[in-house]
Amino acid sequence: MNKIEHIGIAVNDLEKSNGIFASIFGEKQYKIEEVKSEGVKTSFFKVGDNKIELLEATNKDSPIAKFIEKKGEGVHHIAFAVDDILAEVQRMKKEGFIVLNETPKKGADNKLVVFLHPKTTNGVLIELCQDAE
Amino acid sequence: MNKIEHIGIAVNDLEKSNGIFASIFGEKQYKIEEVKSEGVKTSFFKVGDNKIELLEATNKDSPIAKFIEKKGEGVHHIAFAVDDILAEVQRMKKEGFIVLNETPKKGADNKLVVFLHPKTTNGVLIELCQDAE
Repeated sequence: MNKIEHIGIAVNDLEKSNGIFASIFGEKQYKIEEVKSEGVKTSFFKVGDNKIELLEATNKDSPIAKFIEKKGEGVHHIAFAVDDILAEVQRMKKEGFIVLNETPKKGADNKLVVFLHPKTTNGVLIELCQDAE
Repeated sequence: MNKIEHIGIAVNDLEKSNGIFASIFGEKQYKIEEVKSEGVKTSFFKVGDNKIELLEATNKDSPIAKFIEKKGEGVHHIAFAVDDILAEVQRMKKEGFIVLNETPKKGADNKLVVFLHPKTTNGVLIELCQDAE
Protein backbone atom coordinates (compact mmCIF):
# COMPACT_ATOMS: atom_id res chain seq x y z
CA MET A 1 0.00 0.00 0.00
CA ASN A 2 1.67 3.24 -1.11
CA LYS A 3 -0.73 5.76 0.37
CA ILE A 4 -4.35 6.63 1.06
CA GLU A 5 -5.55 7.47 -2.43
CA HIS A 6 -8.94 8.70 -1.27
CA ILE A 7 -11.69 8.35 1.30
CA GLY A 8 -15.15 7.63 -0.16
CA ILE A 9 -18.14 9.22 1.59
CA ALA A 10 -21.74 8.20 0.85
CA VAL A 11 -24.11 11.18 0.56
CA ASN A 12 -27.80 11.63 -0.18
CA ASP A 13 -27.54 14.80 -2.21
CA LEU A 14 -24.29 15.41 -4.10
CA GLU A 15 -24.99 19.05 -4.86
CA LYS A 16 -25.72 19.88 -1.23
CA SER A 17 -22.72 17.89 -0.01
CA ASN A 18 -20.42 19.54 -2.55
CA GLY A 19 -21.32 22.78 -0.77
CA ILE A 20 -20.60 21.29 2.67
CA PHE A 21 -17.15 20.02 1.70
CA ALA A 22 -16.31 23.19 -0.21
CA SER A 23 -16.94 25.03 3.09
CA ILE A 24 -14.74 22.59 4.99
CA PHE A 25 -11.82 22.75 2.55
CA GLY A 26 -12.26 26.35 1.41
CA GLU A 27 -12.15 25.07 -2.18
CA LYS A 28 -14.74 23.39 -4.37
CA GLN A 29 -14.59 19.96 -6.01
CA TYR A 30 -12.23 19.68 -8.96
CA LYS A 31 -14.26 17.07 -10.80
CA ILE A 32 -17.70 15.47 -11.04
CA GLU A 33 -17.96 12.07 -12.70
CA GLU A 34 -20.71 9.50 -13.14
CA VAL A 35 -19.83 5.78 -13.02
CA LYS A 36 -22.88 4.19 -14.62
CA SER A 37 -21.75 0.59 -14.01
CA GLU A 38 -21.69 1.27 -10.25
CA GLY A 39 -24.83 3.41 -10.15
CA VAL A 40 -23.03 6.41 -8.66
CA LYS A 41 -22.33 10.04 -9.32
CA THR A 42 -19.11 11.16 -7.68
CA SER A 43 -17.23 14.36 -6.95
CA PHE A 44 -13.60 14.78 -5.92
CA PHE A 45 -11.88 17.20 -3.58
CA LYS A 46 -8.14 17.54 -3.05
CA VAL A 47 -6.70 17.75 0.44
CA GLY A 48 -2.92 17.61 0.70
CA ASP A 49 -1.72 14.53 -1.17
CA ASN A 50 -5.07 12.76 -0.83
CA LYS A 51 -8.59 13.04 -2.20
CA ILE A 52 -12.09 12.92 -0.77
CA GLU A 53 -14.66 11.26 -3.03
CA LEU A 54 -18.35 11.96 -2.45
CA LEU A 55 -20.72 9.31 -3.82
CA GLU A 56 -24.43 9.71 -4.54
CA ALA A 57 -26.54 6.77 -5.74
CA THR A 58 -28.13 7.18 -9.17
CA ASN A 59 -30.53 4.27 -8.70
CA LYS A 60 -32.04 2.19 -5.86
CA ASP A 61 -29.86 -0.86 -6.54
CA SER A 62 -26.64 1.11 -6.26
CA PRO A 63 -24.31 -0.11 -3.47
CA ILE A 64 -24.41 3.47 -2.16
CA ALA A 65 -28.21 3.46 -1.87
CA LYS A 66 -28.04 0.19 0.07
CA PHE A 67 -25.24 1.48 2.30
CA ILE A 68 -27.16 4.65 3.23
CA GLU A 69 -30.35 2.68 3.84
CA LYS A 70 -28.48 0.47 6.32
CA LYS A 71 -25.99 2.85 7.93
CA GLY A 72 -26.91 6.40 6.93
CA GLU A 73 -24.58 8.91 5.30
CA GLY A 74 -20.91 8.65 6.22
CA VAL A 75 -17.57 7.09 5.33
CA HIS A 76 -18.17 4.32 2.79
CA HIS A 77 -14.64 3.13 1.98
CA ILE A 78 -10.93 3.85 2.24
CA ALA A 79 -8.93 3.45 -0.97
CA PHE A 80 -5.22 2.63 -0.93
CA ALA A 81 -3.02 3.13 -3.98
CA VAL A 82 -1.05 0.07 -5.09
CA ASP A 83 1.45 -0.42 -7.91
CA ASP A 84 0.43 -3.93 -8.93
CA ILE A 85 -3.20 -4.65 -8.09
CA LEU A 86 -3.13 -8.28 -9.25
CA ALA A 87 -0.12 -9.10 -7.07
CA GLU A 88 -1.74 -7.27 -4.15
CA VAL A 89 -4.96 -9.28 -4.56
CA GLN A 90 -2.95 -12.51 -4.37
CA ARG A 91 -1.07 -11.28 -1.29
CA MET A 92 -4.34 -10.29 0.41
CA LYS A 93 -5.90 -13.68 -0.30
CA LYS A 94 -2.86 -15.41 1.18
CA GLU A 95 -3.17 -13.24 4.28
CA GLY A 96 -6.74 -14.52 4.68
CA PHE A 97 -8.71 -11.47 3.55
CA ILE A 98 -11.90 -11.90 1.53
CA VAL A 99 -11.57 -10.24 -1.87
CA LEU A 100 -14.95 -9.12 -3.24
CA ASN A 101 -13.93 -8.94 -6.91
CA GLU A 102 -10.75 -10.73 -7.92
CA THR A 103 -10.88 -9.22 -11.37
CA PRO A 104 -10.27 -5.49 -11.00
CA LYS A 105 -13.11 -3.33 -12.28
CA LYS A 106 -13.13 0.18 -13.68
CA GLY A 107 -13.82 2.78 -11.00
CA ALA A 108 -14.05 6.56 -11.06
CA ASP A 109 -10.99 8.74 -11.75
CA ASN A 110 -9.48 6.29 -14.28
CA LYS A 111 -8.66 3.58 -11.71
CA LEU A 112 -8.78 -0.19 -11.62
CA VAL A 113 -10.32 -1.18 -8.29
CA VAL A 114 -10.73 -4.23 -6.07
CA PHE A 115 -12.65 -4.31 -2.79
CA LEU A 116 -11.93 -6.31 0.37
CA HIS A 117 -14.89 -7.56 2.44
CA PRO A 118 -15.29 -5.42 5.59
CA LYS A 119 -15.94 -8.60 7.59
CA THR A 120 -12.21 -9.36 7.59
CA THR A 121 -11.04 -5.74 7.95
CA ASN A 122 -12.70 -4.47 11.15
CA GLY A 123 -15.85 -3.27 9.41
CA VAL A 124 -13.87 -1.05 7.03
CA LEU A 125 -14.57 -1.46 3.31
CA ILE A 126 -11.09 -1.27 1.79
CA GLU A 127 -10.51 -0.50 -1.88
CA LEU A 128 -7.22 -1.23 -3.63
CA CYS A 129 -6.70 0.99 -6.63
CA GLN A 130 -4.23 1.30 -9.43
CA ASP A 131 -4.09 3.79 -12.29
CA ALA A 132 -5.66 2.25 -15.41
CA GLU A 133 -3.43 2.20 -18.50
CA MET B 1 -7.04 21.94 6.15
CA ASN B 2 -3.51 20.96 5.20
CA LYS B 3 -3.91 17.22 4.84
CA ILE B 4 -5.54 14.09 6.21
CA GLU B 5 -3.54 13.60 9.40
CA HIS B 6 -5.09 10.23 10.18
CA ILE B 7 -8.19 8.07 9.91
CA GLY B 8 -9.49 6.74 13.23
CA ILE B 9 -10.96 3.23 13.26
CA ALA B 10 -12.96 1.84 16.20
CA VAL B 11 -12.03 -1.76 17.05
CA ASN B 12 -13.12 -4.27 19.69
CA ASP B 13 -9.75 -5.88 20.29
CA LEU B 14 -6.66 -3.76 19.68
CA GLU B 15 -4.23 -6.64 19.75
CA LYS B 16 -6.18 -8.63 17.19
CA SER B 17 -6.69 -5.57 14.97
CA ASN B 18 -3.02 -4.65 15.16
CA GLY B 19 -2.43 -8.02 13.52
CA ILE B 20 -5.04 -7.36 10.82
CA PHE B 21 -3.60 -3.98 9.85
CA ALA B 22 -0.03 -5.24 10.02
CA SER B 23 -1.08 -7.82 7.41
CA ILE B 24 -2.69 -5.12 5.26
CA PHE B 25 0.27 -2.74 5.38
CA GLY B 26 3.06 -5.33 5.59
CA GLU B 27 4.40 -3.44 8.60
CA LYS B 28 3.33 -3.34 12.24
CA GLN B 29 2.15 -0.34 14.29
CA TYR B 30 4.86 2.14 15.24
CA LYS B 31 3.27 3.19 18.51
CA ILE B 32 0.69 2.19 21.12
CA GLU B 33 -0.65 4.91 23.40
CA GLU B 34 -3.40 5.11 26.01
CA VAL B 35 -5.42 8.33 26.34
CA LYS B 36 -7.01 7.93 29.78
CA SER B 37 -9.13 11.10 29.54
CA GLU B 38 -10.87 9.68 26.44
CA GLY B 39 -11.08 6.10 27.68
CA VAL B 40 -9.15 4.72 24.72
CA LYS B 41 -6.08 2.70 23.89
CA THR B 42 -4.74 3.55 20.45
CA SER B 43 -2.20 2.26 17.98
CA PHE B 44 -0.75 4.03 14.95
CA PHE B 45 0.28 2.79 11.52
CA LYS B 46 2.02 4.82 8.83
CA VAL B 47 0.82 4.70 5.25
CA GLY B 48 2.44 7.18 2.87
CA ASP B 49 2.17 10.64 4.38
CA ASN B 50 -0.84 9.67 6.53
CA LYS B 51 -1.59 7.55 9.58
CA ILE B 52 -4.22 5.04 10.57
CA GLU B 53 -5.22 5.15 14.24
CA LEU B 54 -6.93 2.13 15.78
CA LEU B 55 -9.00 2.87 18.90
CA GLU B 56 -10.13 0.37 21.53
CA ALA B 57 -12.36 1.45 24.45
CA THR B 58 -10.86 1.01 27.91
CA ASN B 59 -14.19 1.46 29.70
CA LYS B 60 -17.92 1.26 28.94
CA ASP B 61 -18.42 5.04 28.95
CA SER B 62 -15.75 5.61 26.33
CA PRO B 63 -17.02 7.28 23.12
CA ILE B 64 -15.54 4.31 21.27
CA ALA B 65 -17.59 1.79 23.30
CA LYS B 66 -20.74 3.78 22.53
CA PHE B 67 -19.86 4.08 18.85
CA ILE B 68 -19.30 0.33 18.46
CA GLU B 69 -22.51 -0.46 20.37
CA LYS B 70 -24.45 1.70 17.91
CA LYS B 71 -22.65 1.17 14.61
CA GLY B 72 -20.23 -1.73 15.02
CA GLU B 73 -16.52 -1.63 14.26
CA GLY B 74 -15.42 0.70 11.47
CA VAL B 75 -14.25 4.18 10.58
CA HIS B 76 -14.84 6.45 13.58
CA HIS B 77 -13.39 9.78 12.44
CA ILE B 78 -11.26 11.57 9.87
CA ALA B 79 -8.65 13.96 11.28
CA PHE B 80 -7.38 16.93 9.27
CA ALA B 81 -4.18 18.74 10.18
CA VAL B 82 -4.53 22.51 10.65
CA ASP B 83 -1.95 25.19 11.47
CA ASP B 84 -4.11 27.33 13.75
CA ILE B 85 -6.84 25.30 15.42
CA LEU B 86 -8.46 28.28 17.19
CA ALA B 87 -8.79 30.26 13.96
CA GLU B 88 -10.12 27.16 12.21
CA VAL B 89 -12.76 26.65 14.93
CA GLN B 90 -13.97 30.22 14.41
CA ARG B 91 -14.05 29.75 10.64
CA MET B 92 -16.03 26.50 11.01
CA LYS B 93 -18.57 28.13 13.32
CA LYS B 94 -19.05 30.97 10.84
CA GLU B 95 -19.63 28.42 8.09
CA GLY B 96 -22.45 26.94 10.20
CA PHE B 97 -20.79 23.76 11.45
CA ILE B 98 -21.44 22.53 14.99
CA VAL B 99 -18.20 22.41 16.99
CA LEU B 100 -18.35 19.77 19.74
CA ASN B 101 -15.57 21.22 21.92
CA GLU B 102 -14.56 24.82 21.27
CA THR B 103 -11.61 24.51 23.61
CA PRO B 104 -9.14 22.11 22.03
CA LYS B 105 -8.40 19.04 24.14
CA LYS B 106 -5.33 16.85 24.36
CA GLY B 107 -5.58 13.85 22.04
CA ALA B 108 -3.23 10.97 21.24
CA ASP B 109 0.07 11.53 19.41
CA ASN B 110 0.72 14.91 21.09
CA LYS B 111 -2.11 16.74 19.33
CA LEU B 112 -4.65 19.37 20.28
CA VAL B 113 -8.00 18.27 18.89
CA VAL B 114 -11.47 19.66 18.18
CA PHE B 115 -14.39 17.65 16.81
CA LEU B 116 -17.19 18.75 14.48
CA HIS B 117 -20.64 17.24 14.94
CA PRO B 118 -21.32 14.62 12.21
CA LYS B 119 -24.87 16.00 11.87
CA THR B 120 -23.51 18.94 9.87
CA THR B 121 -20.83 16.99 7.99
CA ASN B 122 -22.72 14.21 6.19
CA GLY B 123 -22.46 11.76 9.06
CA VAL B 124 -18.66 12.03 9.17
CA LEU B 125 -17.09 12.82 12.54
CA ILE B 126 -14.35 15.30 11.63
CA GLU B 127 -11.41 16.04 13.90
CA LEU B 128 -9.25 19.13 13.48
CA CYS B 129 -5.80 18.60 14.93
CA GLN B 130 -2.73 20.69 15.54
CA ASP B 131 0.61 19.68 17.04
CA ALA B 132 0.68 20.56 20.75
CA GLU B 133 3.57 22.81 21.80
